[in-house]
Amino acid sequence: MTELKNDRFLRALSREPVDMTPVWMMRQAGRYLPEYLETRKKAGSFMDLCRNTDLACEVTIQPLERFELDAAILFSDILTIPDAMGLGLYFETGEGPKFKKTVRTEADVDQLPIPEVERDLDYVVNAVRRIRQELNGRVPLIGFSGSPWTLATYMIEGQGSREYRHAKAMLYGQPEVMHRLLDKLAETVTHYLNAQIRAGAQAVQIFDSWGGALSTPAYMEFSLKYMEQIVHGLIREHEGRKVPVILFTKGGGQWLEAMSVTGADALGLDWTTELGDARRRVGHRVALQGNMDPSCLFASPAAIRAEAGRILDSYGQGSGHVFNLGHGINQFVPPEHAKALVDAVHELSVKRHA
Amino acid sequence: MTELKNDRFLRALSREPVDMTPVWMMRQAGRYLPEYLETRKKAGSFMDLCRNTDLACEVTIQPLERFELDAAILFSDILTIPDAMGLGLYFETGEGPKFKKTVRTEADVDQLPIPEVERDLDYVVNAVRRIRQELNGRVPLIGFSGSPWTLATYMIEGQGSREYRHAKAMLYGQPEVMHRLLDKLAETVTHYLNAQIRAGAQAVQIFDSWGGALSTPAYMEFSLKYMEQIVHGLIREHEGRKVPVILFTKGGGQWLEAMSVTGADALGLDWTTELGDARRRVGHRVALQGNMDPSCLFASPAAIRAEAGRILDSYGQGSGHVFNLGHGINQFVPPEHAKALVDAVHELSVKRHA
Repeated sequence: MTELKNDRFLRALSREPVDMTPVWMMRQAGRYLPEYLETRKKAGSFMDLCRNTDLACEVTIQPLERFELDAAILFSDILTIPDAMGLGLYFETGEGPKFKKTVRTEADVDQLPIPEVERDLDYVVNAVRRIRQELNGRVPLIGFSGSPWTLATYMIEGQGSREYRHAKAMLYGQPEVMHRLLDKLAETVTHYLNAQIRAGAQAVQIFDSWGGALSTPAYMEFSLKYMEQIVHGLIREHEGRKVPVILFTKGGGQWLEAMSVTGADALGLDWTTELGDARRRVGHRVALQGNMDPSCLFASPAAIRAEAGRILDSYGQGSGHVFNLGHGINQFVPPEHAKALVDAVHELSVKRHA
Repeated sequence: MTELKNDRFLRALSREPVDMTPVWMMRQAGRYLPEYLETRKKAGSFMDLCRNTDLACEVTIQPLERFELDAAILFSDILTIPDAMGLGLYFETGEGPKFKKTVRTEADVDQLPIPEVERDLDYVVNAVRRIRQELNGRVPLIGFSGSPWTLATYMIEGQGSREYRHAKAMLYGQPEVMHRLLDKLAETVTHYLNAQIRAGAQAVQIFDSWGGALSTPAYMEFSLKYMEQIVHGLIREHEGRKVPVILFTKGGGQWLEAMSVTGADALGLDWTTELGDARRRVGHRVALQGNMDPSCLFASPAAIRAEAGRILDSYGQGSGHVFNLGHGINQFVPPEHAKALVDAVHELSVKRHA
């Protein structure tokens, strides 16, 4: 394999010394970039874009051409797994993802097949392989999956939700059915991430977008437990290098201690948690990734720079921090504001690693 | 004034002994009750219902006729203040509240009038007086207001928001303008709550629905600071009895220590925070209100009862806990599920107060 020219991101995840704090942005390949919108138009639907190896590779690389990012992330969707389970993922203009079929009963759960990743999700594996080739060692490539709980909410509700009416009814009323569903999902996510690692993903992130909608004991029992199960099933070393795992529960700031003992290498933080406090709470067990309020990118480059500095100060001296937003970049952010952030993180962090 | 027949709620807020844990539900007068929908139909629009003293009183009392609730809460909207400031509040079917005018520039903020509460919000004050009369000492009446930050987000965005694009741009880019707006709002909220207290509200709650969308330092500077300012400006004793103040920041579980030293008597908790942990963190400084996941009410009465028991156990022995949901009750909850909750809290808590 080609040698990695910039391994700042991987080093920070292992809390090894770096010259400056690495930075990438969740959803960095996306609608705020005019070149993304161009490619998207060529592709057809959003899922057509995910399924087209050439174009998925193209949009993954696009933000790297504009900004000095320290990692690339596979362009894909978190709902590829339920789609491969036969639920029929589709997107309507201006709305979130939806499924043609839902999973609401014990029979629904039992009938759900466990996908054969290399066959049913070959387009993801192919995209990873192709992007890795195209990156040619420029920066590491991150693979990812949704968490079992997050996937389950979409599968049960059939779409995004604010109240999780059906998912919560199952969780509180038929916990054993929920556990069977989560177990199937955890097994599938493990296969899925391992296939991405074998195809060349050099780190993986589990997106637990809806873990923060749970009570503390429900989070432990229905979300964290399954992420831990996945972490233990992952290939942790590949091509002679450690493959770090990042857990990101949006709204999970109250549960960092529990998250830090799952075996994950790093925790993603949203912006509601103070980074310095988080560092004290998790000790030397894990690295931290985050955590600027993505809506700060609506303010001026000067304000963005000031906030980036504040967050770097909050973390303090030394390695173990990957700068990121606390959630995906918004489609209405001007690309030059994203550039201001990336440049500020590099410039302002040098002295933290002297 | 008539003597209070059930003062469990007020006693718990002052951490005085009670015979059982008091319970009420946020949005307990609402769309899940068929009788509410009937009255709503008679009234016309939602704001017509808020403005009609007789009907606002009627819907406030309705849930007390069904459930053994320990408090009534004024039926009104959190956005009455921006409406009285001239922004033109309206509701479109199936959508959240909207404003005809927004507040986005320095000039917009400077032109904003501070309402004369007894004149511009007389319908709220009249409703409080009338409900208090009608309750006739049955249970205490809670008054309320939105927090300055929460009101500001609606005023700036012109409607509810997920990203707070304009509000965050102002917060990060023109913090001094944001502070001027919040200052005006804090002054108005203080007048507004004091008018409710003078008219008969026996406790007040400040709803900081969107405080949880802020970073830790932004929460302290732009939300908590102004709630503290309000707490210090409130009438704290009336009719010979203490008027407790409850602060509720949805998503504020990470900031309880700071909230507990504002002078508020109690903190509202959403369901993501473990109640027993919260109690340890705030010590004897404040009472706690909450915190069942409102979506638990979609499960069976048996599951609801089990979860209520778990939450009571988490709090432990003694007074200082008002049972509530962690957010408003959902419109699709069957009323008999709400009854199961209220009854379970009373029955299961007796032994905690022996």
